[in-house]
Amino acid sequence: MGLNVYLSGEIHSDWRDRIIEGAQGLDVTFSSPVTDHAASDDCGVTILGVEESKFWHDRKGAQMNAIRTRKGIADADVVVVRFGDKYKQWNAAFDAGYAAALGKSLIILQPPEHDHALKEVDAAALAVAREPEEVVEIFRYVLTGTLPG
Amino acid sequence: MGLNVYLSGEIHSDWRDRIIEGAQGLDVTFSSPVTDHAASDDCGVTILGVEESKFWHDRKGAQMNAIRTRKGIADADVVVVRFGDKYKQWNAAFDAGYAAALGKSLIILQPPEHDHALKEVDAAALAVAREPEEVVEIFRYVLTGTLPG
Amino acid sequence: MGLNVYLSGEIHSDWRDRIIEGAQGLDVTFSSPVTDHAASDDCGVTILGVEESKFWHDRKGAQMNAIRTRKGIADADVVVVRFGDKYKQWNAAFDAGYAAALGKSLIILQPPEHDHALKEVDAAALAVAREPEEVVEIFRYVLTGTLPG
Amino acid sequence: MGLNVYLSGEIHSDWRDRIIEGAQGLDVTFSSPVTDHAASDDCGVTILGVEESKFWHDRKGAQMNAIRTRKGIADADVVVVRFGDKYKQWNAAFDAGYAAALGKSLIILQPPEHDHALKEVDAAALAVAREPEEVVEIFRYVLTGTLPG
Amino acid sequence: MGLNVYLSGEIHSDWRDRIIEGAQGLDVTFSSPVTDHAASDDCGVTILGVEESKFWHDRKGAQMNAIRTRKGIADADVVVVRFGDKYKQWNAAFDAGYAAALGKSLIILQPPEHDHALKEVDAAALAVAREPEEVVEIFRYVLTGTLPG
Amino acid sequence: MGLNVYLSGEIHSDWRDRIIEGAQGLDVTFSSPVTDHAASDDCGVTILGVEESKFWHDRKGAQMNAIRTRKGIADADVVVVRFGDKYKQWNAAFDAGYAAALGKSLIILQPPEHDHALKEVDAAALAVAREPEEVVEIFRYVLTGTLPG
Amino acid sequence: MGLNVYLSGEIHSDWRDRIIEGAQGLDVTFSSPVTDHAASDDCGVTILGVEESKFWHDRKGAQMNAIRTRKGIADADVVVVRFGDKYKQWNAAFDAGYAAALGKSLIILQPPEHDHALKEVDAAALAVAREPEEVVEIFRYVLTGTLPG
Amino acid sequence: MGLNVYLSGEIHSDWRDRIIEGAQGLDVTFSSPVTDHAASDDCGVTILGVEESKFWHDRKGAQMNAIRTRKGIADADVVVVRFGDKYKQWNAAFDAGYAAALGKSLIILQPPEHDHALKEVDAAALAVAREPEEVVEIFRYVLTGTLPG
Repeated sequence: MGLNVYLSGEIHSDWRDRIIEGAQGLDVTFSSPVTDHAASDDCGVTILGVEESKFWHDRKGAQMNAIRTRKGIADADVVVVRFGDKYKQWNAAFDAGYAAALGKSLIILQPPEHDHALKEVDAAALAVAREPEEVVEIFRYVLTGTLPG
Repeated sequence: MGLNVYLSGEIHSDWRDRIIEGAQGLDVTFSSPVTDHAASDDCGVTILGVEESKFWHDRKGAQMNAIRTRKGIADADVVVVRFGDKYKQWNAAFDAGYAAALGKSLIILQPPEHDHALKEVDAAALAVAREPEEVVEIFRYVLTGTLPG
Repeated sequence: MGLNVYLSGEIHSDWRDRIIEGAQGLDVTFSSPVTDHAASDDCGVTILGVEESKFWHDRKGAQMNAIRTRKGIADADVVVVRFGDKYKQWNAAFDAGYAAALGKSLIILQPPEHDHALKEVDAAALAVAREPEEVVEIFRYVLTGTLPG
Repeated sequence: MGLNVYLSGEIHSDWRDRIIEGAQGLDVTFSSPVTDHAASDDCGVTILGVEESKFWHDRKGAQMNAIRTRKGIADADVVVVRFGDKYKQWNAAFDAGYAAALGKSLIILQPPEHDHALKEVDAAALAVAREPEEVVEIFRYVLTGTLPG
Repeated sequence: MGLNVYLSGEIHSDWRDRIIEGAQGLDVTFSSPVTDHAASDDCGVTILGVEESKFWHDRKGAQMNAIRTRKGIADADVVVVRFGDKYKQWNAAFDAGYAAALGKSLIILQPPEHDHALKEVDAAALAVAREPEEVVEIFRYVLTGTLPG
Repeated sequence: MGLNVYLSGEIHSDWRDRIIEGAQGLDVTFSSPVTDHAASDDCGVTILGVEESKFWHDRKGAQMNAIRTRKGIADADVVVVRFGDKYKQWNAAFDAGYAAALGKSLIILQPPEHDHALKEVDAAALAVAREPEEVVEIFRYVLTGTLPG
Repeated sequence: MGLNVYLSGEIHSDWRDRIIEGAQGLDVTFSSPVTDHAASDDCGVTILGVEESKFWHDRKGAQMNAIRTRKGIADADVVVVRFGDKYKQWNAAFDAGYAAALGKSLIILQPPEHDHALKEVDAAALAVAREPEEVVEIFRYVLTGTLPG
Repeated sequence: MGLNVYLSGEIHSDWRDRIIEGAQGLDVTFSSPVTDHAASDDCGVTILGVEESKFWHDRKGAQMNAIRTRKGIADADVVVVRFGDKYKQWNAAFDAGYAAALGKSLIILQPPEHDHALKEVDAAALAVAREPEEVVEIFRYVLTGTLPG
């Protein structure tokens, strides 16, 4: 058994690296959105032409990113969604809802101060973790039956 | 043709009332989450017994509310998701993602200051409205072909 | 047994009226797109605000019309798609493909001069008719087992 | 992450070659309909026997081609549909509708003069491109996060 | 609880009447194919025009009948398929396979001499009955919990 | 909003009656398996003929009961599964798994002594209740937003 | 593009061998039912124990064969169903219906004398062939665009 | 043709080893739940933190195990469920129901004394075996057409 894992959410800390590095040696294949914030914002107009309106500038970019996001979630066995300290992160919650409706196994990675605000998201998840290393331990256990320590 | 509409999101302003009242005379059936904030938070422990941990207190409530939310979205032709000024509103974005994955027609109701933060959500929607009255006009047009003015 | 029928395609002749009138007395419920050409083109900007770019003007309208179109096709047992003499009619062919992928029973209504150009569309259909009255006879036969004459 | 891409539509220009060549080095697997116009028209009767009627001649061919087309679309992550200058191209619009109903990511490749006629098709797409090279840049960005220039 | 039942198969004996009459008073809604053999054979050419080839004559009719058959099976909770003494009855077996793939509850009504030939069909069924009256008793039990005698 | 509810599991106590009676006045439609133990065991052979082998005696009955059970679960928004004190109750757990895979909202009704043995079943549920009256209160809250007391 | 093909139906002539041999060099993967008639009839009782009743003897075998048949059809892009001269061949028609409901591309291989009896089956197919060599040519054309001669 | 097989149920005897060993040389890929009872019970709290309540201790573990279980069942062609002598084994019956609803081929492995209690589970299965070696023989027959002896 191997796992396809999509890493959704926060793009301003090193949580993805910590998970990917920690999972070395396990049969896990990772995918994730484009995490270059500027490229992610401007991809649509850079490739398909400038928009005067910021609204349609954003739309073009968001739809281009959706090609990658939907593929990543559709192919995933497990979707990990990370909520961090900054920004609205509505795209993270949107991905969580999207993945839940497709029946994907959801793991939410969040600090305790967000617990109440994330209760509906957590209620659709199979695990709520605090640290990336816990997510790695979940993968290790799910794939090998081995617990830490 | 009639429409089943689920009204998701913000529960602290009168937007639902304005839509429901405005749509009188149209063949629209509305459903929505429980909008009594306190009841929504405490339903789980009130009915099924107290929890010491706030985390599981929230979980019990969120899962009980999910019985209503999932039914509302599953039965809907159109899901309207309102993002307001306060709170994290991750449950609103979660509902939007859930509805999108089920192929529901999405209408997002949002103030312009949230446009950039909601660009991924908007990119999955068929309309982005600013005022509840616009949503009513969409229903009127979709059902009768009549435009305002 | 009753039939839900969606009438897609050409909006510049009276074919819908001839079918609906001819089917009186049969247990058929009809739906169709908005057939007021001007309203259909301008609905998006009229309700949700003017766009400078014609491209986004069209997008707003097309997505608003999609709320009705998708509902009509999703609820239909049979989708009739009419190809007429004028315009590109790519939306008609799009609806036919959409309906085919959902497993709907397709009836195509077309003049013989389009036969070759429509061969892929016809190949997904259960009937190719020339006149609206033939479509009525199909409904009568399917519902009552009665043939004309 | 790799992408399966189906290239639908116009068969009389070199747009497929330009995309396939441009995408060399990217993890993209392409499929497409048979682009030999004569073979595509006559495959049915050549293999399964002559038909006196042109209508059934066309039907036999179109259904044989559908074996390939449906497989190509079903396996695709992304469906690119090209609308050119000539012919009715209803099969291209049919493929777009078929792909949309299956939830595939759609990219439409079209000249500006078709914008209004294609507005319903575009409304279901995640990108509207003008040149094959833009489609290549979309694939590069989606797969590697790299923007041109 | 009520049941939608589709009665597929043999059209040359009175088994449908015996079931429908026997089920009077039970909350069962029946549908069935057109059982007028001549109409069923000729519907296509009668409505849509004569074919020189018998093969396409049959195709036109079979596809028109499929509009009714697919609707009947799609809406059914239970599909009863009757195999009689005469003819090849491949359409009956086709309907049984179609219904099985859709997860419908199958009841097969067959004489013992066909048991071996129908073993694959029976293996997908929830009941194999010998007489129409047994099918009525199944409906009575399923709906009311009452057994005969 | 109304709810279709299927009441699965234990047939030797009055829990169904307590729920149905308690829910009077709420928009809930109930269905359930045949709860006459003897009829449920013998329905197959009584209607379709005696079997020498107890194994096939049981098979015939279980498949006949499945016509009702599958219909009840398929139509349900909420499936309540009651685990009591006696018997193996594997059919109850089977129904819970079946309902979970179909995405139904699950409520499990169980005494605390079964908590550990039911942990996998509970993990797929939206609520775990101890008394039928709690299930009634869940329905009242889900449908009206009203909490007890 | 490669094709997974399931070869259903008649087991008493060499049609499978002729197709498989003819398709050498093409990217086609074949599967088929067990074609050893005696093994296919007796597999259930041989492995799982003797049955006194021929009916359950057959049932045990048919259900064991269904493990292979369902897997073969589920994995197939194309299902070829051969109707020969002998036996009732209801399992072949059942497979055709099952495959049609799953949206598989169907090719029917039949002698002309069965045309009328198979019209409903043919109406769900994308090709009706007379000889195994024609099926090979279809595969060659679908995969390479090359026509014979 | 190869088979993906998920081995669900009893974890206190060597039945999995006997099947896996017996199937050596056949194209079968096996997966199974974590069979270390202590690890399976405590995985949730060991990785994600201690719970005071046994109920939530169990929930955390059961949901973590569900990541593996759902993946195993979702990927399987065949699900074998073993019922042994001890414990309630409701998770085994839950897995059987879950697999049945997904249309997986079910094989139940059970001693005769459980036949009556498992009749509803068996009624959804394609084979009921008594010994692991019989399951191996089923795989050998399904994959190679060869019967023992």
